[in-house]
Amino acid sequence: MRTLSAFISSSTSFGHCFFHRLTLRHSHRTLTSPLAPCFRRHFTPTMAAPEDSLRKALADKQSEVENQGNQVRSLKAGKAAKSEIDAAIEALNALKLQKASIEKDLQATLSSADGSVNREAFRQAVSNTLERRLFYIKSFNIYGGVAGLYDYGPPGCAVKSNVLAFWRQHFVLEENMLEVDCPCVTPEVVLKASGHVEKFTDLMVKDEKTGTCYRADHLLKDFCNDKLQKDLNITAEKAKELKHVLAMLDDFSAEELGAKIKEYGIVSPDTKNSLSDPYPFNLMFQTSIGPSGLIPGYLRPETAQGIFVNFKDLYYYNGNKLPFAAAQIGQAFRNEISPRQGLLRVREFTLAEIEHFVDPEDKSHPKFSEVAELEFLMFPRELQMSGESAKAIQLDEAVAKGIVNNQTLGYFIGRVYLFLIRLGIDKKRLRFRQHLANEMAHYAADCWDAEIESSYGWIECVGIADRSAYDLRAHSEKSGEALVAHEKFSEPREVEVLVISPVKKEIGLAFKGSQKNVVEALESMKEKEAFALKADLESKGEVDFYVCTLGKNVSIKKNMVKISKETKKEHQRVFTPSVIEPSFGIGRIIYCLFEHSYYTRASKAGNEQLNVFAFPSIVAPIKCTVFPLVQNQKYEDIAKDISKSLTVAGISHKIDITGTSIGKRYARTDELGVPFAITVDTTSSVTIRERDSKDQIRVDVKEAASVVKEVTEGLRSWADVWATFPHHSSASADE
Amino acid sequence: MRTLSAFISSSTSFGHCFFHRLTLRHSHRTLTSPLAPCFRRHFTPTMAAPEDSLRKALADKQSEVENQGNQVRSLKAGKAAKSEIDAAIEALNALKLQKASIEKDLQATLSSADGSVNREAFRQAVSNTLERRLFYIKSFNIYGGVAGLYDYGPPGCAVKSNVLAFWRQHFVLEENMLEVDCPCVTPEVVLKASGHVEKFTDLMVKDEKTGTCYRADHLLKDFCNDKLQKDLNITAEKAKELKHVLAMLDDFSAEELGAKIKEYGIVSPDTKNSLSDPYPFNLMFQTSIGPSGLIPGYLRPETAQGIFVNFKDLYYYNGNKLPFAAAQIGQAFRNEISPRQGLLRVREFTLAEIEHFVDPEDKSHPKFSEVAELEFLMFPRELQMSGESAKAIQLDEAVAKGIVNNQTLGYFIGRVYLFLIRLGIDKKRLRFRQHLANEMAHYAADCWDAEIESSYGWIECVGIADRSAYDLRAHSEKSGEALVAHEKFSEPREVEVLVISPVKKEIGLAFKGSQKNVVEALESMKEKEAFALKADLESKGEVDFYVCTLGKNVSIKKNMVKISKETKKEHQRVFTPSVIEPSFGIGRIIYCLFEHSYYTRASKAGNEQLNVFAFPSIVAPIKCTVFPLVQNQKYEDIAKDISKSLTVAGISHKIDITGTSIGKRYARTDELGVPFAITVDTTSSVTIRERDSKDQIRVDVKEAASVVKEVTEGLRSWADVWATFPHHSSASADE
Repeated sequence: MRTLSAFISSSTSFGHCFFHRLTLRHSHRTLTSPLAPCFRRHFTPTMAAPEDSLRKALADKQSEVENQGNQVRSLKAGKAAKSEIDAAIEALNALKLQKASIEKDLQATLSSADGSVNREAFRQAVSNTLERRLFYIKSFNIYGGVAGLYDYGPPGCAVKSNVLAFWRQHFVLEENMLEVDCPCVTPEVVLKASGHVEKFTDLMVKDEKTGTCYRADHLLKDFCNDKLQKDLNITAEKAKELKHVLAMLDDFSAEELGAKIKEYGIVSPDTKNSLSDPYPFNLMFQTSIGPSGLIPGYLRPETAQGIFVNFKDLYYYNGNKLPFAAAQIGQAFRNEISPRQGLLRVREFTLAEIEHFVDPEDKSHPKFSEVAELEFLMFPRELQMSGESAKAIQLDEAVAKGIVNNQTLGYFIGRVYLFLIRLGIDKKRLRFRQHLANEMAHYAADCWDAEIESSYGWIECVGIADRSAYDLRAHSEKSGEALVAHEKFSEPREVEVLVISPVKKEIGLAFKGSQKNVVEALESMKEKEAFALKADLESKGEVDFYVCTLGKNVSIKKNMVKISKETKKEHQRVFTPSVIEPSFGIGRIIYCLFEHSYYTRASKAGNEQLNVFAFPSIVAPIKCTVFPLVQNQKYEDIAKDISKSLTVAGISHKIDITGTSIGKRYARTDELGVPFAITVDTTSSVTIRERDSKDQIRVDVKEAASVVKEVTEGLRSWADVWATFPHHSSASADE
Repeated sequence: MRTLSAFISSSTSFGHCFFHRLTLRHSHRTLTSPLAPCFRRHFTPTMAAPEDSLRKALADKQSEVENQGNQVRSLKAGKAAKSEIDAAIEALNALKLQKASIEKDLQATLSSADGSVNREAFRQAVSNTLERRLFYIKSFNIYGGVAGLYDYGPPGCAVKSNVLAFWRQHFVLEENMLEVDCPCVTPEVVLKASGHVEKFTDLMVKDEKTGTCYRADHLLKDFCNDKLQKDLNITAEKAKELKHVLAMLDDFSAEELGAKIKEYGIVSPDTKNSLSDPYPFNLMFQTSIGPSGLIPGYLRPETAQGIFVNFKDLYYYNGNKLPFAAAQIGQAFRNEISPRQGLLRVREFTLAEIEHFVDPEDKSHPKFSEVAELEFLMFPRELQMSGESAKAIQLDEAVAKGIVNNQTLGYFIGRVYLFLIRLGIDKKRLRFRQHLANEMAHYAADCWDAEIESSYGWIECVGIADRSAYDLRAHSEKSGEALVAHEKFSEPREVEVLVISPVKKEIGLAFKGSQKNVVEALESMKEKEAFALKADLESKGEVDFYVCTLGKNVSIKKNMVKISKETKKEHQRVFTPSVIEPSFGIGRIIYCLFEHSYYTRASKAGNEQLNVFAFPSIVAPIKCTVFPLVQNQKYEDIAKDISKSLTVAGISHKIDITGTSIGKRYARTDELGVPFAITVDTTSSVTIRERDSKDQIRVDVKEAASVVKEVTEGLRSWADVWATFPHHSSASADE
């Protein structure tokens, strides 16, 4: 018989879309690396063409230079006429100039393809502003900091809390999700069931003398990139090889990585000492629970497991009805070997995860029509494989054509799109990329990443995966608790069921120690496969049969298995729900939002570039500033009254009564992304300035707070307000 | 000279108000124990009187019984007349009856003083409801759970997120605090500076055979309580001794605890094996950061340190101005030896902490007048010492009389009071208790706990401490970074400064290894003390001088120190700010809120007690339910329309279209504390029912969502709504 446990224990491979994939990139299912997002190597082959021909031209010119050099030398040796020698030298110099020109072109091609100079300058400008205005701070800075740990300072913290509040509104409230809040400290058994204890690893090498640790793939990647960028004399073939290595990086086993490191002579970057062989390092922070030291525990690497282990209670809470979604916002932890990429790869971060439980036989979504007509950049695997770019597709078309596996998955893709756009992510730099077949866990039905383009390249910020029944089955198996749903029939149904009965005695005799694997593989056959096997056995008596947990074929004889269909009366259907999991890396979204919102504009005097964060009101750390135009008790009193009204209205704001020039005060708050400024310049009315247009309207003192409330809460647009109130023009608004 | 480092290194003792105190209860500064909150032992001496006299009467009666027994035996032995023997037996029986009666009285006195039976029944009723409705869940329950770890299920999670949102509104927004968000993973150096690595311990004993760990004070406490409760035959003297032990529990050293455990023959409660001597166990979860295993780290035991290490940046962010407050909400972790008391003592919990930095020379608060007239239960140390009860005091009076040390501390006490009351804490069961002198850290200026009475007794839920400059100084010293504030003078000031110049050569000769301690002690003298010493030295030539870091007097000679006053020109004052720290145990507040909100009422039929949580709208997990009165497409469509309007208005709600009776549906949501229910019973108008009064009004369909929004957001009271709309009476509202 086909049993639940058989199905589970035949699932030996592992992978949890997005966040798992990010770290489980050595598995054979993972092709892309989040560590080299500047190029998606498998869809930028077009880049290679000019580079290749230039490399070839350079090599050709080099041999011409060498030949001509030989020519000059032999003329000199043969004591040829001075005029002849001079002509040859002139020709040599011309060739050298030509070579230098090709080198220059190649250099230009490499750096324009890379774009790293501009990107890094942009990133530095954003980071400088972010750090100076305390959006984030290196944690424990007075003690030298700790790699991969950052604090959010006041404006960053406000942005984060706004993003989370909006997430709760947009997902939890809107969809009536069941939000839970589970501990970070997690006992080992839970993470054994999920596979993290065994497989949540990166490959590491150690400096053989100092013991300093490095990520093996980082070193190989750096070596290849460095060679490609800086060594102009490598051949086109060598360049191709290095690019292939980069493309394969995530698929390399420990042995393959080690071999490449040896082959290229890669040494410790800091000491030039030789390196150990690569070996897996588990990325979970380990601890121990209770005083005895006997209960091993970890800091959770994701929040999802807390939901899965509570499935039974949550299903009951939902009136034993499917579908329903549970959600969790919380800290997750990954002890990265050597964190890079600033806020994008950190050791502690906030995740917001949704687990939408659904009947695997009905993945329609009642609210799909609400997102059906959205059109945005999608990047299905076919486009990736054929080297094309992402293109705008309408969501209902994507679902209808089967590009997106099912309506519920499509619904969440649409909702994630709306969420990101409303936060202020630039829709032109947002795409939904489908996982390639070899990136996905074997059990996953489909998986899409919301990728946002930043100065680090395209960054996976949200993973949206149909993980089928994998997680609930894993915890069912480990805990012995049935994590299933029931569909009660109004009256009993006669159902035909597939019955696969392996004859254990015969199988035991034939396969001994592998008996269990064979039995499970037979039991997990689907109907079509089972009857094909049955037919084959009847005609041939013996058939090759692939056992995935053994990784090979075995020979099955007719007497080893009985396959039939039987009619049964069933009162209910019991099944393990599928789960569709949108998983949000909040810190990554916020970082990309910083980059997308940042711009500079000249000061009025034109002698300075001023920084602006164009945050929408919903995420702006402070919604409004209140300034008396000049230092004056009357204006100050009015400013304080308006401040009080804003507090009552729940609008976060800042009052600035310093004597600093109004232009400077505007510039300061533009840099914090404050969308509106109220300036008190008379005792009866005030001006309200909008950050990006710098337009100002004039409003009665009493109305100021409520107008700001309306525009910041989206009840009214600035355009509407602009059309309603008298305009105010002031030189000072635009310092 | 008096130096910063001298001041710091002379601070050997340790204590962090409230949360530190809870765990640092073995220090000599700590008298009360949060583990035995049912009685505050130092202010319930009145309880002892009837118990003492009953114990004495019982002992007297017991000896009368024994005497009379001997009498009977000797009569029998002397073959006395039957009538005489019978009379003696009758007298014996009478005495036994009298003894039984006294025993009964004693039992009743003990259990009424204790009240534990009723309290436990109440707690059980609340817990049952909370668990059944998934307010909280034992974490990792399908794997048997882990002591001290709980999940918040959907309604609990919603309550928590409402409490935190209100906290942010009430404190961060209202006061323009600088909120930060720092990691949980913390490197050792930070927690060494704070003192946690050395002193954040509880005393533990181990079962000598099985190795099971117990908290030493728990075992001794349980033994004493058990003896007092159940052994009626102990003498009044013995009872007094046991009570004294209970009162002293937190002051016992490891040696004293061990001696008592031996004296009373206390053994392992599970196996009856003997126990090890008590030894300190550090309560921080330990881990290691990075792959080398060489950077020790801990999960933070509080969030405050993240603020202190960022002081310099935050001060700069605030324009180098004092006062300002920083705030943080986040997880904290304590690896309790054996967690008890459900949600009140857990291993992972959410803290919300404020660090208000202020000039130590000016602790006035500009907004004090806004809370000055609040009057609530305060429990100053004088009342505690004299055995009186907490009494209502007006806040301005408390500050004016010096009961509360300063205005800023008073302001925060007032704000905390308002916060808790608005959440729904019963003001009659809330008091502010001042720390006794021996509970406070030596550096603390004053410290008050907001204590809430629950079935576990009075629970410390918020600590509000004036911690002076301790924390900033500790991190300054350890990191070498000056964490100070500056007050620039408009023009230079001539100031007289105390100059204490120890003559290191002489001191070195006299005290050798202790030289540093003596120098520091001399340098840290205040003016009065210094000039007293100077006068003494001049008259006597040699003086005894107490060095606290040596714990003894040393003999100081005239040639060892020069003390004078000098006039200097100063351009600014540089000082370490004081910090006033309100620290909120969010989980504890929520649990107390559950208890204070819970009540039962008879069902209409009278055959059932129905559970209700009377949450104010601000904390209610769901603000409103929407019910079609009967199953009917038209009603259902209207219900869905109203649901959409509520979603747009941001009102969390639940729609229930099941055919369950309306009364049952009301009862279900009363149990979740949902304040309002909209019932669709016509196509034009609906009813809105208020949970506690069960009153119903009739409202137009189109108005329903906005009326609910107004009452849940506090823009309008129910009384006002009740006065405005027509009333609706329905039997079904009151099942």
